[in-house]
Amino acid sequence: MKLPVSTEWLLHCATTLAQLDPGATASAAQLAQYFDLPAAYLAKQLQALVRSGVLTATTGPRGGFRLARPAAEITLLQMVEAVDGASSPYECREIRQQGRGALPPEDCRNTCILAEKMGEAHEAWRRSLAATSLADILAALPSSAPARTRRRMAGTT
Amino acid sequence: MKLPVSTEWLLHCATTLAQLDPGATASAAQLAQYFDLPAAYLAKQLQALVRSGVLTATTGPRGGFRLARPAAEITLLQMVEAVDGASSPYECREIRQQGRGALPPEDCRNTCILAEKMGEAHEAWRRSLAATSLADILAALPSSAPARTRRRMAGTT
Repeated sequence: MKLPVSTEWLLHCATTLAQLDPGATASAAQLAQYFDLPAAYLAKQLQALVRSGVLTATTGPRGGFRLARPAAEITLLQMVEAVDGASSPYECREIRQQGRGALPPEDCRNTCILAEKMGEAHEAWRRSLAATSLADILAALPSSAPARTRRRMAGTT
Repeated sequence: MKLPVSTEWLLHCATTLAQLDPGATASAAQLAQYFDLPAAYLAKQLQALVRSGVLTATTGPRGGFRLARPAAEITLLQMVEAVDGASSPYECREIRQQGRGALPPEDCRNTCILAEKMGEAHEAWRRSLAATSLADILAALPSSAPARTRRRMAGTT
């Protein structure tokens, strides 16, 4: 059970964008340089955050990515599910209905109790991620972080 | 983020073994027939539950698998981690320490706040799975289930 490696990239990129001056943008190339990541692949991943409404992409000479919403309204869950989708890691293929022990359809109207419990665990995971916003992440950084981030980002091209 | 398909197999096989008469065993071939699963691959997966102390494997003409502990002392977490390991799905490669924005080592003595929050979500998932035992699963089945399971298992070879 693994999330894509790009999950870390996108969480850090969004955290970085959240520290820029209001309205400022950063390009995929700048973010790639900032974290030493492959630019083309990062650009593709950032589009997943655009599609999910976390980031806005603007074009033109000063174009780039910025947060689409206030940091307090963007959760870890939204970002993680933008990369990996929202489905449960547990796959129920209804093996209770096959083989020598197959249950009849009338006994399978309800979700299998095992799938139900696995689903509850997934919901606990989702609730935990939904409880943390980008604003919470920023609040946990040293107070000097945003100024440093802006300074270092200004050095990228 | 996907658990192996065999996760469903093992949860159902353990649930089935938990319904047998005390001391009774079932072979991998019987369980495979019961759920119409590939016997050789199922046998290999069942060994993961033996290694993790959930099942005991006995050899000989009446040998097979049985629970190694009372059903109340076997949790969904133990079985899922027997199949898939215990590591978090989120991989932190410390990209905060690389590229133009690299933080100095002295600022990275603590776990990255993003990795910490992802770890908290994984712990919430683990706690949820640890809160459900095989005995809880059995208690949620119809009262007729154990007798039916034993009858149908007896028909397997």
